Amino acid sequence: MSPDKTNDSALRARALRVIPNGMYGHQSARRFPASYPQYFERAEGCRLWDVDGRQFIDYLCGYGPILLGYQHPKIDEAAARQQKKGDVMTGPGSVMVELAEEFVRLVGHADWALFCKNGTDATSTAISVAREYRGSRKVLIAEKAYHGSAVWCTPLPGGVLKEDRAHFIYFKYNDIESLERASEEAGGDLAGILVSPYKHDVYVDQEPVNPDFAQRCRAICDEKDAILMLDDVRAGFRLARESSWARLGIQPDLSAWGKTIANGHPISALLGNERCRATMPKVYVTGSYWFAAAAMAASLATLHEISSSGYLEHIVRMGDMLRQGLATQAAAYGIGLRLTGPVQMPQMLFDNDPEYKKSFVWGEYLIGHGVYFHPWHNMFISAAHSENDIKHTLQVTDRAFEVLAKSPLAA
Amino acid sequence: MSPDKTNDSALRARALRVIPNGMYGHQSARRFPASYPQYFERAEGCRLWDVDGRQFIDYLCGYGPILLGYQHPKIDEAAARQQKKGDVMTGPGSVMVELAEEFVRLVGHADWALFCKNGTDATSTAISVAREYRGSRKVLIAEKAYHGSAVWCTPLPGGVLKEDRAHFIYFKYNDIESLERASEEAGGDLAGILVSPYKHDVYVDQEPVNPDFAQRCRAICDEKDAILMLDDVRAGFRLARESSWARLGIQPDLSAWGKTIANGHPISALLGNERCRATMPKVYVTGSYWFAAAAMAASLATLHEISSSGYLEHIVRMGDMLRQGLATQAAAYGIGLRLTGPVQMPQMLFDNDPEYKKSFVWGEYLIGHGVYFHPWHNMFISAAHSENDIKHTLQVTDRAFEVLAKSPLAA
Repeated sequence: MSPDKTNDSALRARALRVIPNGMYGHQSARRFPASYPQYFERAEGCRLWDVDGRQFIDYLCGYGPILLGYQHPKIDEAAARQQKKGDVMTGPGSVMVELAEEFVRLVGHADWALFCKNGTDATSTAISVAREYRGSRKVLIAEKAYHGSAVWCTPLPGGVLKEDRAHFIYFKYNDIESLERASEEAGGDLAGILVSPYKHDVYVDQEPVNPDFAQRCRAICDEKDAILMLDDVRAGFRLARESSWARLGIQPDLSAWGKTIANGHPISALLGNERCRATMPKVYVTGSYWFAAAAMAASLATLHEISSSGYLEHIVRMGDMLRQGLATQAAAYGIGLRLTGPVQMPQMLFDNDPEYKKSFVWGEYLIGHGVYFHPWHNMFISAAHSENDIKHTLQVTDRAFEVLAKSPLAA
Repeated sequence: MSPDKTNDSALRARALRVIPNGMYGHQSARRFPASYPQYFERAEGCRLWDVDGRQFIDYLCGYGPILLGYQHPKIDEAAARQQKKGDVMTGPGSVMVELAEEFVRLVGHADWALFCKNGTDATSTAISVAREYRGSRKVLIAEKAYHGSAVWCTPLPGGVLKEDRAHFIYFKYNDIESLERASEEAGGDLAGILVSPYKHDVYVDQEPVNPDFAQRCRAICDEKDAILMLDDVRAGFRLARESSWARLGIQPDLSAWGKTIANGHPISALLGNERCRATMPKVYVTGSYWFAAAAMAASLATLHEISSSGYLEHIVRMGDMLRQGLATQAAAYGIGLRLTGPVQMPQMLFDNDPEYKKSFVWGEYLIGHGVYFHPWHNMFISAAHSENDIKHTLQVTDRAFEVLAKSPLAA
């Protein structure tokens, strides 16, 4: 089937008329090779089917939310059951209290929870709480880190005024010296530091956090009575059954969550400690669907699975198997490859591939053989990825490396 | 049952420990009399059941989203069907294209659609598009109008810096002179005007839009090559099967939608015309759940109902019946009452009641007798409110007026 005769290309042509640029945001396939699908028909477990009936083992997991597999029966049933009682109502359901209690039980630093819809809602609210806490203005964030798509953080300049970022000071992730310079620049006006649990910027190699750097973030906030905000939207619950720096013995004052917390159902959360409790209500935030009960029921069921299942050990084991396999294959074919990030959130970039040409050749082979990899964004493993799925994936990637090794690009 | 022995009060006590201030945002019942429920168990048609089994005819409709009644079978089945195929996936479903096409078919000014989650996502994106359009900065908005809860528009000062609002200029709704003053102040730096279809501010009487004022908004944008943005999040599809100023022959460049567009399922939308088409993709906005297919399927089913049913004529007729009944009763008891806003989005305020004491006495009687009214926020009628529901409501309100007339507050 030639790409211009597919259901996908027909939908793309229709979309060009009624959707800006045909598609927007992080799920736009516009910059991928044409054989990548834009539209999907169905999802189950770790598998996706596109609108032309092609099946893929999916390594994006909806760009993160799907932690336990698509169509997880317990979670989707919990949501459906609540939906049949009431979802959006004139007030929340009792599940909201249960969910807040469960987050407080599970996440060490959390004494309270606020629920919203977008990850950006949680990070934006965190910034406001940090600023309201002592009336300070300066917030330190890492250069090029993704914290959402509001004017204060969106990666493209369109629609952003310089005033929107007047009181942000930028440091380099893991660079203690640059962090300290930023803190000095903030002086007595430091409201807080917003930081990701590790460096998971798009397009580049991922970096684990340097524990000394993380400690310094905490120490600066303590010294200056400022608020440490951990952006766990992307990595939350894929690194730990806790906020992601708990392993280092470091607890933030606020943490932002989304994606995994309801296995795809629409909800995000801001968690906070006692220090921030009195400040939070001074910041007015709300949304038409923030009190909707079905996504909360899904989240509660997801937290129960997180607490009671071996999902975490499993995704680490599957991620490790995938990484070792890819590394071995690449070495065998003499292809320079960088595999970075936690194994359960793998980033894979080819050496000397600034325009992703190798990535595209390799990725198209995968797409043509039922495996969906991303050319420049970190990927995600779910609890539904089985050993057989990884083995099958590695059979396909082996042939993809072979194809790439024979192409002029390998020269 | 005394209020301190109820399931509701037990939940409130638990919530105080794990939710900031016990509840936040527009669904907090904290400022209502104690007999108002905070938590709901179930919703169906125009009825709510609280966690203590009390049943209410609901005049809030989830604060707007429920246009066609809770648990609408066609809409909820469309969502459930899509959910069982795929909701959040690694790309959108084909329903996204169908939904954008349907919005473009239904809403006169719309040549394209972008889907998001919160009403605030849609209004915030509109502001960014207007600013990016010609690189201008100033946006005119009405004093005290509600356009969402981001730092540029949230009604409380907490967490807001003066820079966040540096380039907003405020006018008085319906006051052409103040609009022109604001436009003069913007000079050649006018990016656009963001305006609600009528004045629906909380706490005060609602005002229909003066058509000359609306025309002037459009004319100023035309004269200055600026963007007219209509905030139809609250009123959209309750005034018309079109954007809300179409009746006046006025089309905005951008319109923001939410609430009613999926009868409670979580989705909002920004619609735009050709003029803004090339600008929109320059503004990067996205969200983890923005491409989720289930809410889009719900929205598509809702638009079909909007196109094909007599819901609009029905909610006007029911609203009219309610308003006439309330006005007649209040007059009979000699109680000064102001009934404002479109009848299908009624606002009811007592004369000389700055602390809502009359409203509370009256509202508590209603709560005690199975009717949920809001003390200071506009209410909403749905297609599920029947003549019998309105008649029953008016029986209760008649007795409530009688109680109020006999109370010392009536003096």
